[in-house]
Amino acid sequence: MNAPTQLAHVMPEIKPRPAPPALMDALKSRFGAQFSEAMAVREQHGRDESAFTTVPPPAGVLFAESTADVADAVKLCAQHKTPVIPYGVGSSLEGHLLAVQGGISVDVSRMNQVLAVNAEDLTVTVQPGVTRKQLNDEIKSTGLFFPIDPGADASIGGMAATRASGTNAVRYGTMRENVLALEVVTASGEVIRTGTRAKKSSAGYDLTRLFVGSEGTLGVITEITLRIYPLPEAVSAAVCSFPSIGEAVNTVIQTIQLGVPIARVELIDAHSVRAVNAHSKMTLREAPMLLMEFHGSPASVKEQAETVQEIAREHHGADFEWADTPEERTRLWTARHNSYFAAVQSRPGCRCITTDTCVPISRLADALLDSVAEADASGIPYFLVGHVGDGNFHMGYLIDPGSDDERARAEQLNRQVVARALALGGTCTGEHGVGLHKMGFLVEEAGAGAVAMMRTIKQALDPDDIMNPGKVLAA
Amino acid sequence: MNAPTQLAHVMPEIKPRPAPPALMDALKSRFGAQFSEAMAVREQHGRDESAFTTVPPPAGVLFAESTADVADAVKLCAQHKTPVIPYGVGSSLEGHLLAVQGGISVDVSRMNQVLAVNAEDLTVTVQPGVTRKQLNDEIKSTGLFFPIDPGADASIGGMAATRASGTNAVRYGTMRENVLALEVVTASGEVIRTGTRAKKSSAGYDLTRLFVGSEGTLGVITEITLRIYPLPEAVSAAVCSFPSIGEAVNTVIQTIQLGVPIARVELIDAHSVRAVNAHSKMTLREAPMLLMEFHGSPASVKEQAETVQEIAREHHGADFEWADTPEERTRLWTARHNSYFAAVQSRPGCRCITTDTCVPISRLADALLDSVAEADASGIPYFLVGHVGDGNFHMGYLIDPGSDDERARAEQLNRQVVARALALGGTCTGEHGVGLHKMGFLVEEAGAGAVAMMRTIKQALDPDDIMNPGKVLAA
Repeated sequence: MNAPTQLAHVMPEIKPRPAPPALMDALKSRFGAQFSEAMAVREQHGRDESAFTTVPPPAGVLFAESTADVADAVKLCAQHKTPVIPYGVGSSLEGHLLAVQGGISVDVSRMNQVLAVNAEDLTVTVQPGVTRKQLNDEIKSTGLFFPIDPGADASIGGMAATRASGTNAVRYGTMRENVLALEVVTASGEVIRTGTRAKKSSAGYDLTRLFVGSEGTLGVITEITLRIYPLPEAVSAAVCSFPSIGEAVNTVIQTIQLGVPIARVELIDAHSVRAVNAHSKMTLREAPMLLMEFHGSPASVKEQAETVQEIAREHHGADFEWADTPEERTRLWTARHNSYFAAVQSRPGCRCITTDTCVPISRLADALLDSVAEADASGIPYFLVGHVGDGNFHMGYLIDPGSDDERARAEQLNRQVVARALALGGTCTGEHGVGLHKMGFLVEEAGAGAVAMMRTIKQALDPDDIMNPGKVLAA
Repeated sequence: MNAPTQLAHVMPEIKPRPAPPALMDALKSRFGAQFSEAMAVREQHGRDESAFTTVPPPAGVLFAESTADVADAVKLCAQHKTPVIPYGVGSSLEGHLLAVQGGISVDVSRMNQVLAVNAEDLTVTVQPGVTRKQLNDEIKSTGLFFPIDPGADASIGGMAATRASGTNAVRYGTMRENVLALEVVTASGEVIRTGTRAKKSSAGYDLTRLFVGSEGTLGVITEITLRIYPLPEAVSAAVCSFPSIGEAVNTVIQTIQLGVPIARVELIDAHSVRAVNAHSKMTLREAPMLLMEFHGSPASVKEQAETVQEIAREHHGADFEWADTPEERTRLWTARHNSYFAAVQSRPGCRCITTDTCVPISRLADALLDSVAEADASGIPYFLVGHVGDGNFHMGYLIDPGSDDERARAEQLNRQVVARALALGGTCTGEHGVGLHKMGFLVEEAGAGAVAMMRTIKQALDPDDIMNPGKVLAA
């Protein structure tokens, strides 16, 4: 089968391996109604939030309810050398869930129990289908919270698999820093545990961090132990508008370089503000804007805010508008989280091609301003949002999915954004993962030798290439 | 060759592979005076700070001066299937440097250049032989510092290889969190780079963290990019004595559970205080003691200290004695850092067998108090120090190296400490690594499946088992 035209340049190899009837029979026999071959279910599981839409869906979907279910499904698929594609809530932006080599989607959304809350140790153990909002709801009474917030209400399993981060990472780190231990079903269907609940360890190879960010290509994550944090005594949020993106970015760079422990500092451009205003019925000034949050004791929050206000003033920022009550803060962050969908809705029928570069903080202005200039020159509608405290930002190019020309131009812009980030010492993906979309960029970034080492590991741990094949490492 | 008696129970396999004359000739020809076969040099490189002393030394020592030297040496050793043992400053406590299968020691101490200080990005890139004190001296003028402090003036390469941490980890994390990128010479002598200078990334498998903590068994680390931090505006240090170890530990547990961002909180027991007083001519009260340090703005430091003082008072802590000037603080931390050597000197001619468990913070009192009671009952001289804010502590059993009985009893105590930590959800090694000493414990902790996966990775990346063989993974 040939790759559909619009994917050819980023997804060279679509070759579904048919799922043998014997496997389908075995799955039906073992799982009954938990296993679905309904086309609507398969189609829902064969796509994600990326701009890839035209790959044939998986042959079937297993709604796993336990680690044993996952292990049995993987064992059956392994016997038949048929791909296994783990599925959480489908919020991937990089094509992780597409059945480019066919296979079975293993949906873990029913594995949604918070298994243990160890408040006294600041840890929690969850099943992979628990979403981040659900987790925070369930632990609210403990006075603790899980800070990682990629915007979407993603599953914790998916967040671990893509090494996700988001708005709070500037203060609390990413999934890399906040996953303590995992339970994993390997490519042979064996169940292993990586790590303990101890905060640190030097006990052998760091399998936990090998699986965090492996995007389902080495195994299926079936349990996650996470660090959680005391809710800060005081929280204060503010927005501040700037005459230009450059002035906003330079405010952030100085804030980070001074070591201010800011909890969130998000940039949204005027396009995003406009879309958010329309979508969320808000009246934010339609100019580049920083959304900030400060966590700490009342004195520390005040001190942090004063420092950042002073820096912002030097860069011609408007006065801070404060959102001090929980309701106001929720409204503000909901608006930020909706910015992606708001922007997508601003061009009816469009699909969004998203960049995800991350650069050393001092190079952020260089990386970002040239990307904006190129997008402006292209004429393609776009928006910009950024976890700028980490040097990470996203351009979203809003393309007509029927226009090969727009898609090609957006991908060309994306290539330029990535090339610039790599030249500045950065990465092609800060938090979304490689998926299908960045396999070529990974080679440019890591070099052939490092990618060959990744492939050696993949082949050693998954010799029949059944775990989410065709992702991360190009054939 | 049989294993020397006193190692038999922890080091089942000592079988040097002779280095072929052709390899020795090739190394001499390529490296001239950089390659030494002098027995004194070999013996110095065949031991470390562990209690293991009687293994034959490596066949030769290469003083590498560049990545190319390391790569060439590894290539030559690979051709002759001869082991390569990376060597930094020799401060390992777990037998990492012993030539249990013979081979060539690759000493990287001459690779001691700070290659780049990117102050504006809070990163630094160093060669592996740079020591942590050297690094902090060289970046002092930037107003930044590298916080990881295992006590010994270890090499950064060694610290990365063992996933080291130490006194500041409670606030700043371990080498796991603070290594951004590596250059590595693989088992085939190829040079690869892992990671970029971006603060976060989702670009493929986390090779950086695979090599951090791999103890030289997957490759030789030849360059390290680290996170560094702004020197805190205010620093305040204090000591506080307690009537019992339990009350000191409970003070720490509450401090952590409250989320106080304490930068250091170290426990030393009365034995250690006595040894430190004798060694450093100090007059600390000979009782269990917490040594603490607070970093932040003046207001934040004051706030943190007040909170901890209040907790300490509830647990019958004495008044804080403050060390506010840099000189006083240096004196205090030097005393703490010397506690290991001070304790070892308190029993002339002894060797020290060190435990390194780390448990979830709420289980620290259980883990620690029973370990102390068992040590007291044993009659073997010992001391206790702990990075207790992380749940990590070290018992040091001071044994007569000539007494098989004392060694066996100390190892039995160690086994009990580890078994208890594992039962409490912890790890056998918080920061020293597995080395030779904890290979059996690793299987107990991680389980056969996870260890088998580690071995699969090792075999895939080092098929001839030349990289520091016989460590981490038992044969």
